[in-house]
Amino acid sequence: MTSVLAPDHLGPTVCVGEILVEIVATTIGEGFLEAQPLVGPFPSGAPAIFVSQCGRLGGAAAMVGAVGSDDFGRVNVDRLRNDGVDVSTISVDPEFPTGSAFVRYRTNGSRDFVYNIAKSAAARFGWSQGVSDLIRRSGHLHVMGSALSVPSAREVIDKAVDIVKARGGTLSIDPNIRKELQLDGDTERRFAELVATADLLLPSGEELERAAGVTGEAEAISRLFEIGVKEIVLKRGAKGASYFGKTGERIDVPAFLVEEVDPTGAGDCFGGAYLTCRRLGMPPSEALTYGSAAGARNVSVLGPMEGAGTREELDAFIASTQRRS
Amino acid sequence: MTSVLAPDHLGPTVCVGEILVEIVATTIGEGFLEAQPLVGPFPSGAPAIFVSQCGRLGGAAAMVGAVGSDDFGRVNVDRLRNDGVDVSTISVDPEFPTGSAFVRYRTNGSRDFVYNIAKSAAARFGWSQGVSDLIRRSGHLHVMGSALSVPSAREVIDKAVDIVKARGGTLSIDPNIRKELQLDGDTERRFAELVATADLLLPSGEELERAAGVTGEAEAISRLFEIGVKEIVLKRGAKGASYFGKTGERIDVPAFLVEEVDPTGAGDCFGGAYLTCRRLGMPPSEALTYGSAAGARNVSVLGPMEGAGTREELDAFIASTQRRS
Repeated sequence: MTSVLAPDHLGPTVCVGEILVEIVATTIGEGFLEAQPLVGPFPSGAPAIFVSQCGRLGGAAAMVGAVGSDDFGRVNVDRLRNDGVDVSTISVDPEFPTGSAFVRYRTNGSRDFVYNIAKSAAARFGWSQGVSDLIRRSGHLHVMGSALSVPSAREVIDKAVDIVKARGGTLSIDPNIRKELQLDGDTERRFAELVATADLLLPSGEELERAAGVTGEAEAISRLFEIGVKEIVLKRGAKGASYFGKTGERIDVPAFLVEEVDPTGAGDCFGGAYLTCRRLGMPPSEALTYGSAAGARNVSVLGPMEGAGTREELDAFIASTQRRS
Repeated sequence: MTSVLAPDHLGPTVCVGEILVEIVATTIGEGFLEAQPLVGPFPSGAPAIFVSQCGRLGGAAAMVGAVGSDDFGRVNVDRLRNDGVDVSTISVDPEFPTGSAFVRYRTNGSRDFVYNIAKSAAARFGWSQGVSDLIRRSGHLHVMGSALSVPSAREVIDKAVDIVKARGGTLSIDPNIRKELQLDGDTERRFAELVATADLLLPSGEELERAAGVTGEAEAISRLFEIGVKEIVLKRGAKGASYFGKTGERIDVPAFLVEEVDPTGAGDCFGGAYLTCRRLGMPPSEALTYGSAAGARNVSVLGPMEGAGTREELDAFIASTQRRS
């Protein structure tokens, strides 16, 4: 059987989108209406977390995005470079600051945010000679659905998809669209088009049905394969994960049992690890184990991508960690 | 003798400029290149600190500026409102975030910053009907020299000075220009014009000579009175403060002896307290005591304006705190 994903040697996995620092409140409660203990800056941004995990796991990886000319930008670029990610297409905006997200967990597990993304460097990049050169030698494009609301990311993604596909590369999509996030009609259409072109879809929970546009898990899976998706991995958090193949295969794995310290970034690490393992030639079952391990390990460490693991770290984690029953 | 400052009943002291949150690193060291313990958001911005101290001390006070539509904006507006400051001319920007400053103290006492001011709500306000109405009933305008680099603040200040002066109001200036801050030729000229119009000048240390454009303290004082300044209070930090009157009076006061926790905002609290006391009718010697107390009290508390005191708090502080010898 031919793999549905382009092999690593075809060229790097490219992620396009927001690069942020995250500042985390260390007490549980509501919002930021008074001074309180915080910790940060942690490198963050869903596409950056994904690509960090790709790089740490030994996959060829590159990031397209922008940071400000400040320490927060350097935190991110240094981190990704150390992870083995090609950072040559991260531009440094001379005027706008690095994007940021303050996050505080509420008692019910939901989160309060204070964002600066739309008016930050995170939203200010675009197609350039460097980006064009990168895309023309890349093997895979990973798209976070949330990036489609950002015009700069949208422009790059729109151009990149065709180029990558034309050279035999592949596309993965993490819908990553919170229910609250309203997409305009045009963005919603573009999202649906992209989903239909995805070789690998990586939804979490209810995002599966949202991406399929139908209700019911089985119905959503059928519908997605019908419109053209080739492989689906459904992330269910503490309830484990499931692989679905186009010809009816299904593999379910339980989650690893960890103490939850900070769930931010778990799904992105899962996706980055799963995709990288698949591009490195592993079968779905093995990739699913690494994806689950990467997500769980990241949950046990404070910071959005602080727990992303290398191959050795994930092997050690898998060997020493119980599965949920 | 007629007071050089318009009395409180003529109308509020108006401050125009940046409103920020400040996030403070709780360890000493260099920059923000790794995740570290922080505390915040504290309400901040030199003009906001000044006006907070005016309000707390019972002076009529109003703020012109802007915040984002986020918790950081609410922190500031709530704080100033609680201090008794008129916040009706603080606008809420629907797009840009509240300005922010991350600050970390180095071992030598200097500070590293990561700012978002120029591309934040802090720099996005201007002349409006509300601002016009406020200025036409205000008794005093306080200008921070640093605000002149911000076009929006500059526009409001330029229009406000003439209106306030024409109705018998007065002007105070805190040069507040760090040596590193380069002013362009036009801003430097406007700064010099404003200094010449100032009823009260509130420089710290070497800002005195910079404002006068001559070297030597005595020479600077003479020069400033020559060009039109009516009263000068020189803030010397731990070395105390000095009042200079136009006809040669001089009063020196030692600083209060406090444990320095966070020097940010000390000069702004000093100025806000001194000005307010003068506008409330106190002679320079008494205003100097309150100014010194306000600065010292603020230094002993973490956060840029957390130590700004009410009249009662400052009286208690003065009664219980030793002066430096």
